[in-house]
Order: sequence, then structure tokens, then C-alpha cells
Amino acid sequence: MIIDKLYNDVQKKGPVCVGLDTQLSYLPRYLLDSDMSVEDKIFEFNKKIIDATIDNVGCYKVQIACYEALGIEGMRCFSRTIKYIREKGAIAISDVKRGDISSTAKQYALGHFTGDFETDFITVNAYMGEDAVSPYYDFIKNNDKGMFILVKTSNPSGKDFQDMYMGEHTLYQQMGMKVSQWGKNFIGKCGYSSIGAVVGLTYPEEFKIIKEIMPDTFFLIPGYGAQGGTGKDLANIFKDGLCGVVNSSRGLITAHKNKTEGADFDYFVNEAVLNMKKDILSWL
Amino acid sequence: MIIDKLYNDVQKKGPVCVGLDTQLSYLPRYLLDSDMSVEDKIFEFNKKIIDATIDNVGCYKVQIACYEALGIEGMRCFSRTIKYIREKGAIAISDVKRGDISSTAKQYALGHFTGDFETDFITVNAYMGEDAVSPYYDFIKNNDKGMFILVKTSNPSGKDFQDMYMGEHTLYQQMGMKVSQWGKNFIGKCGYSSIGAVVGLTYPEEFKIIKEIMPDTFFLIPGYGAQGGTGKDLANIFKDGLCGVVNSSRGLITAHKNKTEGADFDYFVNEAVLNMKKDILSWL
Repeated sequence: MIIDKLYNDVQKKGPVCVGLDTQLSYLPRYLLDSDMSVEDKIFEFNKKIIDATIDNVGCYKVQIACYEALGIEGMRCFSRTIKYIREKGAIAISDVKRGDISSTAKQYALGHFTGDFETDFITVNAYMGEDAVSPYYDFIKNNDKGMFILVKTSNPSGKDFQDMYMGEHTLYQQMGMKVSQWGKNFIGKCGYSSIGAVVGLTYPEEFKIIKEIMPDTFFLIPGYGAQGGTGKDLANIFKDGLCGVVNSSRGLITAHKNKTEGADFDYFVNEAVLNMKKDILSWL
Repeated sequence: MIIDKLYNDVQKKGPVCVGLDTQLSYLPRYLLDSDMSVEDKIFEFNKKIIDATIDNVGCYKVQIACYEALGIEGMRCFSRTIKYIREKGAIAISDVKRGDISSTAKQYALGHFTGDFETDFITVNAYMGEDAVSPYYDFIKNNDKGMFILVKTSNPSGKDFQDMYMGEHTLYQQMGMKVSQWGKNFIGKCGYSSIGAVVGLTYPEEFKIIKEIMPDTFFLIPGYGAQGGTGKDLANIFKDGLCGVVNSSRGLITAHKNKTEGADFDYFVNEAVLNMKKDILSWL
């Protein structure tokens, strides 16, 4: 089960997930001014960050939107970035938030669990219910893949629908219960399921309830840093062990801004990773 | 407003939307056996269908999952297919069902409303609330773009969450009310908004309620044909006029199967389009 590798990497190297939501404006001057193509510039940026941080992070999350924004050459860069993460022996999460009917989900599974864009985990939106999720089950079983399903998102409007009550429970709690149930068939040796959940750090009180609803679920936790979540907020969530990985994107991959425009930018990104790791672990 | 063009095309050429959810297995033998690349084969298939049907359809919907499944060359084919539809003067809907936090949604907007993948409409999943939608508003206003937001989907598991009651209303009704409200600022001369809704034909009773909740909303309606919806089901929805476009994918683009393996396959696809159009209009 892929969750065992992620779990072990997190225990060994820490609960930081570096979000490679790379935009051209994040690149240091020396790269922007080089003769490389946009594809090569962004890949070089990502590669240097991966090389610098690989011993200190649990995994990498690559936000596909930033690459779709650059068209075909962006998609080539997306493919190369994920391949590089996996070649280096780290876990790649493709943040694609796909969600569609069964026959279409099968196509997404082929797209992201095989071929040019092959990754370890994808993120999934289950507004359309279980048949938008079940086509991935075969790939979890037979191809050692996994997914994180959106439960409670970190953005301000997350509450628009997710916090509405459906009977006794909110929508995000209903979603949490279903995701936990779907995950029961895919529990690894580590005790967690290869079907995880995305739950934002920005709502620490809600997280407590979610943990009770989802005891076997490993969490992908956005919202640290730029979005407002702190190591203190994580203390409760991680009090019985590292049951998730905490993503930061801008907070890490722009850490070199106002410090350097040179090839040493990766030093500052790694420094930010180490600070984040220290911050989180200091509360445990 | 882009909705005016879609509305006019539907009134003039009929309410059929051809879903180019193309898979290699759909291609006739003569194309499969040719020396072309996979990209060229699928583009040729799509191109011939577009050429054959363009006078008889309201628009085309391209399901990106089928192209992501083929990696980089699939994405090139996706780009070429959308470009071709728009060059021929027809409306392209990119069925991408994206949905993410504000800063990421901006990247998706750049990805699908500019550059290699530029389209007219995208489909959007609003589980994450309004800030997963609002980054597209500028593009509706300034770039003549539009979107269809998932309200009630046509798949069997659509009910898992969408049919749950939140107070007096189900989740899909709550979603419908929000989408209708968000759309008020983007109403075109035709009386409908450039923010439309995806509502499956497979639940005709629910559709009645949705139409009352969403009086200014133009609908993208999947579920006809292969998924079970019929022209009869559309009679009520269209009784005051063509307020939507009805998608069929497999039912149309595999119509040549068991009839020909040759270059005349497009004749059978167009025949299926004409039959579908006739079926729908016969009930009005």
C-alpha cells in the first residue's frame, strides 16, 4: 500500500509537504534571465528545490493548475516534475481535484496513475458521490496508488456548502464519514488508508470532530503559513502521532524573495522547510 | 456575453451538444490502421465529426479526461480540437469540472480561457464555495467567457450528497440557488446568464424544481441516450423555449460502430445527431 511509504517517509523525514505550485513570478532573476524555455526554467526551479529539500520533507504536492496555465509546455513541465520526484524516491501528490462520472473517472485514473503524468496520489472532489471515486479502487489495489478526497477545505468560502447541516451533521462531516467508510478496504500496515482526506488547518475545532469521525484516515493538510494555520494548531491534531502531512506552497517556494536572485535560492527554500518542520515538531 | 452566442446557436441549429469524449476504441478501422500518430488519429476523428455536424448542433463539449488519459500528445489533441471548433465558428465547452481555492482558480482561468487550451465555457465544481468560482468573473466580463457549474449530476451516485436535505432544501437546490445568485451579474441580451448549470436529464422531477429556483439559468444537460434520458423527459424542461443544450457523447460519436470501418463514419454520426435533434424537437 502506497500509504505505508508515505507514512514512513513522514515519520522519518517529517510532516512537511512542499507544494510546487510554481509560477514564473516566483523564479529568481538568474533563471528568468536565462536562455532556457519557460518549461526548462520552471523545471530547473522545481528540480533544485527537490534536490535541496528531499531529506527534510514527507512528500511533494504539485498543483496542476499552475502548469495547465502554461499550456502544452506547462504540461510537459508537470510531467517532468512528477517523474523527477518519484525517480528521487519521494512521494508525489498530484493536486488535480478531479471528480466526474464513472466512465470519465476511469480516464482520469489512466491519465494520472499511468503514462506521462503518473503519480502516487491524486486529490479528488467527491461532490458527485462514490461512483466518482470507485474507478480509482483498482489502481489502489493493483498499482499501489492512493488519493486524498476533499472533506473540509481551507479557503474562506469552504463554509458556503461544507458547513451547512444535513440532519445532525454538516456536509463536511457527511463527506468525512463516507470517505472513512470507502477507505476501510485499503488500510495499510501503518493503520491508515490509501484513501486519505484533505482537511484545512484553518479550522482547528472542526479538525477535532473530523479526527473522531475518521480514525483510520491520513490527512493532507493545507492552510499552514500563507493561509494562516500555525504549528500550534497542529499540536492537537498530531498529539497521538503524525497522522498527516502539512502542505505549504508559497510560504516555502518563495522564501528566497528579497534575499537572493541567484542560484543559491534553494538554500532559502530549504531553510524555510527546516523552520516549518521545527515549528511543527516543537509543539509535539 | 458569450451566452448570447450559445443561445442563438441553439435556437438556430438545435439543442444538441456533441460530446467529443473520444477514446481510441471509438475510431473506425481505417483510422486505427493508418500511419498517423495517436494525436493525429484522434484529431482527424474529431475534425471529421465537427465538419459533418456543425450545421446541426448547438455546440461541442470536449471531455478533457479522455485527453489527459493520453498524456502530452492527448493534451496537444485537446488543444487542437478546441481550436478547430472555435475556428469553425462554433461554441466549445471544455468539460474540466475544475474547482479550487481562489489563487489556484486564477491559474485554471489562465489555463482554459487563454493560451493553448482557450475555450468558450468551462464546467466548474463549486464544492469549495464562491471563491472557487469568483476568479472566473473577470474573464466572463472582459474576455467573453462563461461557465457551467455542477448542480445535479446525472450519475447514479449523484444522490450520495446532492440529495441530502440541508434544512428545507437539498444540497443540489442550495447549489442551484447560489449559482443562480452568482449568475445575476452576467445576464446577456437573451435573458440567460453566462454562468449556467449542469443538471442531468436523468431526474426529470428534480429538474422542474431546479427551473423554478434558477429562472435565468441556461442548462448543460447530460444524461440523454447512453445514460437513459429521453426526448420525452425534455418536453417539460423546454416547454417555454430552448433553455439549455443537451449533451450526448457515446450515443453520437460511436453511432458508426457495426455500420462502417471506413471514412464514411461521419455520415452515421451526423445521422445520429439529426435523429437526436428530431427526437427532442418532436416533443415540443
